[in-house]
Amino acid sequence: MNTESYFSERRTVRSYDPSRKLTFNEIEHMLEAAAHAPNTGNMQLYSVVVTTDDQTKKALAPAHFNQPSVMSSQAVLTFCVDFNRFEKWCRQRNAAPGYNNFQSFMWGVIDTVIYAQQFVTIAELNGLGTCYLGTVTYNAPEIAKVLDLPARVVPVATVTVGYPTGDSPKSDRLPVSAIVHADKYHDYTEDDINRIYSAKEALPESAGFIAENGKETLAQVFTDARYKKEDNEYFSRVFADLIREQGF
Amino acid sequence: MNTESYFSERRTVRSYDPSRKLTFNEIEHMLEAAAHAPNTGNMQLYSVVVTTDDQTKKALAPAHFNQPSVMSSQAVLTFCVDFNRFEKWCRQRNAAPGYNNFQSFMWGVIDTVIYAQQFVTIAELNGLGTCYLGTVTYNAPEIAKVLDLPARVVPVATVTVGYPTGDSPKSDRLPVSAIVHADKYHDYTEDDINRIYSAKEALPESAGFIAENGKETLAQVFTDARYKKEDNEYFSRVFADLIREQGF
Repeated sequence: MNTESYFSERRTVRSYDPSRKLTFNEIEHMLEAAAHAPNTGNMQLYSVVVTTDDQTKKALAPAHFNQPSVMSSQAVLTFCVDFNRFEKWCRQRNAAPGYNNFQSFMWGVIDTVIYAQQFVTIAELNGLGTCYLGTVTYNAPEIAKVLDLPARVVPVATVTVGYPTGDSPKSDRLPVSAIVHADKYHDYTEDDINRIYSAKEALPESAGFIAENGKETLAQVFTDARYKKEDNEYFSRVFADLIREQGF
Repeated sequence: MNTESYFSERRTVRSYDPSRKLTFNEIEHMLEAAAHAPNTGNMQLYSVVVTTDDQTKKALAPAHFNQPSVMSSQAVLTFCVDFNRFEKWCRQRNAAPGYNNFQSFMWGVIDTVIYAQQFVTIAELNGLGTCYLGTVTYNAPEIAKVLDLPARVVPVATVTVGYPTGDSPKSDRLPVSAIVHADKYHDYTEDDINRIYSAKEALPESAGFIAENGKETLAQVFTDARYKKEDNEYFSRVFADLIREQGF
């Protein structure tokens, strides 16, 4: 595959060909390469649970709001912040870990997400399709239970992987100038915002989303339907409670 | 470059050739490709500040504990969780954002880190060297001040980028079987831990770190010298305060 064009042309794949097989060893081989991605102080504060078994996938599905990509995927990968392994090592080596705090949790999140994204790139360059499931930070307690996650382990990124079937649409993106700031941050004027979002708002599917949800603007589809304040606040409490329970 | 071997052979580069030039447009071109990486609900909750100006780099350097890669790099990229742009759009479109909470902050962190890592991969495949600076979550308030970050914007990943000079060592990694769990999480026995860490502990540089720091074990180098409990707790408070101040 042409690497240069891959990055600009990649798309998320939610639908997989169930007749194709992907072995645990093939996945592990890609995860081995991905582990050369950067991480904080080379502590490797992550683990990944590779679920290929149908029974366990079925148990995970409700926590992912039964998104069909869970069952149709060749595997569900749950990437977790993991201080359990590192701290066991510290204790066996007469060293007292001081990582039950927010700063340490952040290193873990950053390292885990870098690792997950490196796996995604490797899998996609190998012709596989992938999809992140944002539900992992919503229903982390249920996922932790199904996967037997011990204390000091918190799931933060779930990726389904499999052989693509059918066509997956390419998503729009904001103009790069909207995201990149030269030298320092330059705040947005009202005109900037109108210009930045104009192409997205003009997409035919945007009109569709507004109509489907009975809203006036595309922004209201986000605030009133997809990512509502009361849901965000509820799932904030659930996730914060789990993090505390897992010892951070 | 052979993509397959790139992933297993990549290394972090902290030393750059100051005689080479990297233009803002070249960096922006890579950041444009990187923006096709996955993100939550296509909200693109991130911004990146590209600092190439020597005066601003000098102002950033102390916040990165004067690591030499800041000044010698062709650019310092500060990747930030950004709800400022998205919420301005919501308000201009008669939509009430409900994103001043922990769950929303987590989407932002995950999306920002995915974006940063996608940039790193693209830059490295283009022959550039990169280095993440973990200091960004330590001294985020100073960085926010230097870069004029407004409310609702929090820096979470800093990457220096430039043309490599000299040889950069390849870091060791734990055996992949130590990180990957089949189907569910399998907790580590004492023997597992001894086996997992044995190769790392046997490295000549590990003996060097132990001697330099006057410690008994490599684990103590982490707990007593590199990542100490009191520092972690101090920087937890500093970072949590900034996040609150920025409106989460």
